[in-house]
Amino acid sequence: MDLWFTEKQTKHFGITAKVKKTHHTEQTAFQQLDMIETEEWGNMLVLDGMVMTTQKDEFVYHEMVAHVPLYTHPNPKHVLVVGGGDGGVIREVLKHKSVEKATLVEIDGKVIEYSKQYLPKIAGDLDDPRVEVKVDDGFMHIANSEEEYDVIMVDSTEPVGPAVNLFSRGFYDGIAKALKADGIFVAQTDNPWFKADLIKQVYQDVKEIFPVTRLYTANIPTYPSGLWTFTMGSKEHDPLKVKQDRFDPIETKYYTSDLHFAAFALPKFVKDLTE
Amino acid sequence: MDLWFTEKQTKHFGITAKVKKTHHTEQTAFQQLDMIETEEWGNMLVLDGMVMTTQKDEFVYHEMVAHVPLYTHPNPKHVLVVGGGDGGVIREVLKHKSVEKATLVEIDGKVIEYSKQYLPKIAGDLDDPRVEVKVDDGFMHIANSEEEYDVIMVDSTEPVGPAVNLFSRGFYDGIAKALKADGIFVAQTDNPWFKADLIKQVYQDVKEIFPVTRLYTANIPTYPSGLWTFTMGSKEHDPLKVKQDRFDPIETKYYTSDLHFAAFALPKFVKDLTE
Repeated sequence: MDLWFTEKQTKHFGITAKVKKTHHTEQTAFQQLDMIETEEWGNMLVLDGMVMTTQKDEFVYHEMVAHVPLYTHPNPKHVLVVGGGDGGVIREVLKHKSVEKATLVEIDGKVIEYSKQYLPKIAGDLDDPRVEVKVDDGFMHIANSEEEYDVIMVDSTEPVGPAVNLFSRGFYDGIAKALKADGIFVAQTDNPWFKADLIKQVYQDVKEIFPVTRLYTANIPTYPSGLWTFTMGSKEHDPLKVKQDRFDPIETKYYTSDLHFAAFALPKFVKDLTE
Repeated sequence: MDLWFTEKQTKHFGITAKVKKTHHTEQTAFQQLDMIETEEWGNMLVLDGMVMTTQKDEFVYHEMVAHVPLYTHPNPKHVLVVGGGDGGVIREVLKHKSVEKATLVEIDGKVIEYSKQYLPKIAGDLDDPRVEVKVDDGFMHIANSEEEYDVIMVDSTEPVGPAVNLFSRGFYDGIAKALKADGIFVAQTDNPWFKADLIKQVYQDVKEIFPVTRLYTANIPTYPSGLWTFTMGSKEHDPLKVKQDRFDPIETKYYTSDLHFAAFALPKFVKDLTE
């Protein structure tokens, strides 16, 4: 049987990938979870019909969420990842020697379970002694934290299902409170081709709270439009003013110190969303 | 009827777009030409089953082919576009006041004809008095030109069908001969996710001929992987050394002077293809 998985990324456009095998399919307490093996991208985690990560292109998203804020901070010790149950962001966080503790708060334990089983190169570092894994509501975890973290990364699904309140003004207020006095946060904020209004709104919300607000992009071929945005809010440190000697070498496949700065040079129509 | 156009960008992966209407379909002397209207992208030109351009995202490709070399050259007067029968690159070229003449050499007159009819905002400037349109073989046109052009842009299809020899070493030798002593050329060179070997080979070929060889990228959502590369060969001028006062303002939706430089900051796995 010739089996293809199609994600409608908009009502009228999508991607389609040939499927070798369905490893697991389950309606969890929070969302529809599918772990499939595709010919082009290897194993692929799909939540509510949307591609979350694949073996072949996962490095882009995970590196760009983690390294941009971690190099912007001069000495990140305690890091929080909200969502990110596949473990990819945690893996990148642990490449930074200054990090003493990385906390993961994922609402859906099944995402962790099946990522460990079918995406071991992504999720493998969740068992590192520096990592604390909590299966809990990220919104509530943030609300109950105070001046605790150097860097917070929001690795959520798109703003449907369990992630809706992770795109709210109240959540960003909570993040500001949960960060230390010179803390930094970054959130994935979808794509400018189909979700321009969302990017605009999040940017304005974050700008009202954080002295330094910046948008940057990365190419993720299995995400809608291939052009993904990340919104950063920082209490003090500016990602555009990182000194060259801050970039102690780590192994990457996408991120470079040149790209750290270049990622903030936005296409005109994206820049317009921040003005 | 619920009609969807699917382009298999690789054997096992593709994009799919809902079709409102088929305007025109024809096997020309050179390729299969389809002009369709899609819900998401507006009118779309498809050659041999591959998306060439769409009303919604065409500006990215056309701006990034044209403005990067034209701002790199201090005073471009005579410009050649090989391929590009839809007219989008010509439209962008004409935004530069220094340009006195822009020659388009497109092998397939039908592409010009149907672009004028169904993509008037892209092809409209083909009737500008500064433009000379030749329906001819780009390879032969280059072979017969000597020290004629300041800038040459190769806006070809992917290296199948009529465009195969536009990716050959002999073609780049011809381009070097067709350019003036400080001339610059740029060619679209596909994507690094599925065509890494092609990019590597073209880069090496160009590097053997031109003192300055550079690779840059742009996000084009309807092209495979969304991450497109362009290879530039220059006899003298370096795109990374353009002075700020060279950027006389033009109206764009993607290109900015910041992005001019940032586009050359490559993801690590793409940078590796140039080494």
